[in-house]
Amino acid sequence: MTVSDLGEHALLARVLARLPRPGAQILVGPGDDAAVIAPGRNLRLVVTTDALVEEVHFSTAWSRPIDIGYKALAVNLSDLAAMGAAPAWALLSLALPASMLVAGVEELVDGVADLARDHGVSVAGGNITRSAGGLVVDVTVGGEAAPRRWLTRSGGRPGDQLWVSGRIGGAAAGLEMLAQGRESAPGVSDQAVRECKARHLRPEPRVRLGLAVARGRAARAAMDLSDGLADAVTQLAHASGCGAVIDARQLPIDDGARAWWTSTGEDAVMRAVSGGEDYELLFAVPPRWSGRLRAVTSRVKAPALTRIGVLTKQPSVVLDRNGERVPMPGGFEHF
Amino acid sequence: MTVSDLGEHALLARVLARLPRPGAQILVGPGDDAAVIAPGRNLRLVVTTDALVEEVHFSTAWSRPIDIGYKALAVNLSDLAAMGAAPAWALLSLALPASMLVAGVEELVDGVADLARDHGVSVAGGNITRSAGGLVVDVTVGGEAAPRRWLTRSGGRPGDQLWVSGRIGGAAAGLEMLAQGRESAPGVSDQAVRECKARHLRPEPRVRLGLAVARGRAARAAMDLSDGLADAVTQLAHASGCGAVIDARQLPIDDGARAWWTSTGEDAVMRAVSGGEDYELLFAVPPRWSGRLRAVTSRVKAPALTRIGVLTKQPSVVLDRNGERVPMPGGFEHF
Repeated sequence: MTVSDLGEHALLARVLARLPRPGAQILVGPGDDAAVIAPGRNLRLVVTTDALVEEVHFSTAWSRPIDIGYKALAVNLSDLAAMGAAPAWALLSLALPASMLVAGVEELVDGVADLARDHGVSVAGGNITRSAGGLVVDVTVGGEAAPRRWLTRSGGRPGDQLWVSGRIGGAAAGLEMLAQGRESAPGVSDQAVRECKARHLRPEPRVRLGLAVARGRAARAAMDLSDGLADAVTQLAHASGCGAVIDARQLPIDDGARAWWTSTGEDAVMRAVSGGEDYELLFAVPPRWSGRLRAVTSRVKAPALTRIGVLTKQPSVVLDRNGERVPMPGGFEHF
Repeated sequence: MTVSDLGEHALLARVLARLPRPGAQILVGPGDDAAVIAPGRNLRLVVTTDALVEEVHFSTAWSRPIDIGYKALAVNLSDLAAMGAAPAWALLSLALPASMLVAGVEELVDGVADLARDHGVSVAGGNITRSAGGLVVDVTVGGEAAPRRWLTRSGGRPGDQLWVSGRIGGAAAGLEMLAQGRESAPGVSDQAVRECKARHLRPEPRVRLGLAVARGRAARAAMDLSDGLADAVTQLAHASGCGAVIDARQLPIDDGARAWWTSTGEDAVMRAVSGGEDYELLFAVPPRWSGRLRAVTSRVKAPALTRIGVLTKQPSVVLDRNGERVPMPGGFEHF
């Protein structure tokens, strides 16, 4: 049996089963957006790693090196944001085809450096090696959280309301536009086309929001939308021992993405919830904590938060479409 | 100009020049074996990342998945050992070909887990993705050092004696034996053949030794021999603003490797100093600290340390061969 036969989630479960039980210093181990480590009494170190692989996560046909470098760091910052941690440092591991242009490598590093500067992240080290295949950019980021102030996927309880930041579907629509080489589309403004593409190429990690929610104790669980909303809701609900009901009418679907899927004759709701790489944040918030959440959103104004559903005791994860409940579609799997 | 035209060291210099200046929290930034970060007053976090890439660092023709997993962690533990840090946690990032067998992935994880257990390292998290090319195993490790107790490459001074742990050349000879499919060789015992191969496949990171030297303040600079002794001496000397003279007669060349190169008609000294992947440690020790070094070696008995040369004011790095001084050959470059 190959990894492609088995699929990503089942493979991950098998890998996790073979790892030694983490030591007492590891407060959150494998399986969440990031790990939480307690190296000292009052310090919580939060670390995560994520790779971008050529022809899997990007194509040089439409991603410039500067975008690839930016995004490789962005997806990691998004994982820290989902834990409510403040990013501090990064390690950059590059596997480069021997034929890659030096100018391209420099541009890629500039993309990392630009976003690192924006968030006060120090690139503390890394590694450069040759790749016998395509380009692989692997980034590790580390950050800090206060004791008992980080967010996991598993903290949700039945009755918690589910909130999502920003708008969803834009990155998936943008990737389709890029792959088709579209500069315009019927019924979609040229600006919306550019914005959707930008959502795919240069996602904005929600660092300030994640940190503010954690510090303000405004959510009980969180996860980022790297593999799409459907995947995030399913994973957060299951890790929390719950199910979920999502109200399709409340979903903050990106206007450009909705127009694009209307023009292609597809179901915008289904495409938006299954499309990956929005890198928004999903939060589970007990109703009585909504005052805390308002306090956070009055400080961090963008992106806005939208209430989209609720965690349930019943274990199924469903989408309510005008009263009709359908199973939540699967998210993106790499295998 | 491609990265292969430019070469690894020059490329690294260009990349480092483009990174933002690290923040005050970063005590040792890019360019050493690992980075040293000060997240709290009495805590020094030491982190490093290193990748093994199929057909660059290993071939599945002779490396089993369990060896690949073991080695991916081992080379990172070696970097921490060279900084004198105690390893604590690891992140495992895998890029897997879709056709890879699940049993192979499990075996690879077992290789990581076995070595992690040996050193009390917790695998705290990671990432699994698809590779469009070969297998890439990227590991990040984190550990701890006491304030002002870590070792860098740059701490050496003229007059410091250079010491190397264990024996050199075995891994390079073993790789040649593996690539040629040799089970035996004229003048080389079968056990020596097996041992040389094992040095390539399963290098033993010198974790206890590095830690004991740092804690005992027994060296002023250190580096591991990932790219060979010649490379390590050159890098440590230059980072310390020195040159070096190495006495070829003192080099602890592995007996099996020497016999192998004698049988192939090659210069065992030159092959042993330029061959990579021994993962021994090189230390720069002021003569008046030799008592401290003896105290360390009386506690950590294996591997033995051998004095091989001295750092010099004059910037050249030379090899003394029975009184004749020749330039030190270059180490292994990936491009």
